[in-house]
Amino acid sequence: MGKPYVVGIDIGGQSTKLGVVDARGNIIIQTSFDTRDITTLKGYMDELEKTLSRIINAPAVGGKEKVKGIGIGAPNGNYYKGTIESAPNLKWAKDKHGNPEVVYLKKNVESALGLPVVVTNDANAAAQGEMIYGAAKGMKNFIEITLGTGVGSGIVIDGKVVYGHDGFAGELGHTTSVRRTGRLCNCGKVGCLETYASAIGVARTARELLEIEPQRPSILRNIPADEITSKDVAEAAAKGDELSVDVFSYTGRLLGEAFADFVAFSAPEAIILFGGLAQAGELIFKPTVQAMEDNLLSIWKGKVKVLHSELPGSEAAILGSAALAWEL
Amino acid sequence: MGKPYVVGIDIGGQSTKLGVVDARGNIIIQTSFDTRDITTLKGYMDELEKTLSRIINAPAVGGKEKVKGIGIGAPNGNYYKGTIESAPNLKWAKDKHGNPEVVYLKKNVESALGLPVVVTNDANAAAQGEMIYGAAKGMKNFIEITLGTGVGSGIVIDGKVVYGHDGFAGELGHTTSVRRTGRLCNCGKVGCLETYASAIGVARTARELLEIEPQRPSILRNIPADEITSKDVAEAAAKGDELSVDVFSYTGRLLGEAFADFVAFSAPEAIILFGGLAQAGELIFKPTVQAMEDNLLSIWKGKVKVLHSELPGSEAAILGSAALAWEL
Repeated sequence: MGKPYVVGIDIGGQSTKLGVVDARGNIIIQTSFDTRDITTLKGYMDELEKTLSRIINAPAVGGKEKVKGIGIGAPNGNYYKGTIESAPNLKWAKDKHGNPEVVYLKKNVESALGLPVVVTNDANAAAQGEMIYGAAKGMKNFIEITLGTGVGSGIVIDGKVVYGHDGFAGELGHTTSVRRTGRLCNCGKVGCLETYASAIGVARTARELLEIEPQRPSILRNIPADEITSKDVAEAAAKGDELSVDVFSYTGRLLGEAFADFVAFSAPEAIILFGGLAQAGELIFKPTVQAMEDNLLSIWKGKVKVLHSELPGSEAAILGSAALAWEL
Repeated sequence: MGKPYVVGIDIGGQSTKLGVVDARGNIIIQTSFDTRDITTLKGYMDELEKTLSRIINAPAVGGKEKVKGIGIGAPNGNYYKGTIESAPNLKWAKDKHGNPEVVYLKKNVESALGLPVVVTNDANAAAQGEMIYGAAKGMKNFIEITLGTGVGSGIVIDGKVVYGHDGFAGELGHTTSVRRTGRLCNCGKVGCLETYASAIGVARTARELLEIEPQRPSILRNIPADEITSKDVAEAAAKGDELSVDVFSYTGRLLGEAFADFVAFSAPEAIILFGGLAQAGELIFKPTVQAMEDNLLSIWKGKVKVLHSELPGSEAAILGSAALAWEL
């Protein structure tokens, strides 16, 4: 009998979520801890190890003999090195000069818990989760696109997540196929897909459109421009606000154009959309698919599915990270 | 003892080249036949099988007992199906209405010769050849870019050529990361990388530059505009013709910008340039590397090599196709 459980850990900017998961994707136990007040790496690792130990030894799990391994999804998580490197949003991972420190996650957690650990970034974890528990079950070639505050991606080829030469492959949010000039990205480049297709990008497009067309009515004008969020735009669009619908059409068009280039790279069976923006449904899917089709080589027209993630929203991050551990 | 030889076949628009190759990349025997006068599929297959039989049974080879298998590189060659599909340049692969026929290469050659056959496109064959015999020896992750009449690509991840869901992965010449508007491509799309970075694209850039700057001196003005080839531009640039140097700078810049997006996809150790244009050396490498570096995420800056193919020019196509057969 193999060990029945794996642990999934999702490290975010504000909190860390942990869960013990079985092979069918049932979460046996889960918890999280707030990391906003943790300011040192040691403080973070202590809390992580304490919490891990607690859930692994919970009666419902039965101790580490029942656990195959631990999967961790983290910003800038590196699969080969088992580290987090240069993650700007993790306050506890900075040295006294405020520079990001290298976090030896795999090494530390393995020696503290005595279980094998695998680390990658959150989008790669989502792709692995999608393959084992979600919309990509049975697929060997697909691309997971995470549309959140930023735009991430996990690429699966021949049934395996692509890590590349250095463990950092799959940064499709920072391709600039869409616009060579334009918006400055957090990464320092200009015109990255992320500056348009992220939650922040959508809000920005809305603000720009409101400004460019000052006469055009929109219920978004009831909100101070600086406070408009992508959620506001989605809600307005769902109510039929035309300007808001146009924001999604524009975003989807850029996304679909980029997808056509991604298809030319790895010829996936499907592109799967995960995250907040994907929840806008047809508002974003329709223009995206249309633009992708318009830009595909004829051999791929009508053949590449664009699907909604089937990982359950609130537990997706834990499931994704957990899925990594089955490969151990 | 394994069988010591493989056969490599390169199917081009005007001729088909064949060679028997050993594990070190020595070509034991090679030949080719002209296909310009062959107008039927049956005519072609008869000639191919006859020639194959002749080289395999040559005394230096010793018959099919010495041959592990046959690798074929062909335009639109499909790895999974073993076919050529919709190849516009193969006159002998058209039905009586002039429409491209599906060529069941693998099936036909296997049953005629009694040896296993693998088929893919020429750029994938070049990538496989580079990995076994060329500049990518020992590499697990790299991208081969073929700069010829068109722009092709073969992507290697984890030591394997990427074929994708349908066998057609790696069409990076038809990504449009470079320009969304612009030149019409043979594929029907607009602004494909191929319209700029191919031999035809370079000649076109030269003609455009000569027209846009009518006062600017250039030795290319000694050639009728319609007859300028990329070779003319390379020769003029090598002689210090500034306008011609600018053509390569422009081409390299677009190529390098596209490379930065490719790196974000698969994080390769190297990008390897193969084909006529690559022979322009520093004229094309320098602006390409510069533009790539300018557009890379910081994690990759200074880390991705851009290399010249080490497959010997005249035999590269045979070596590439032959390399495929070692995987059989």
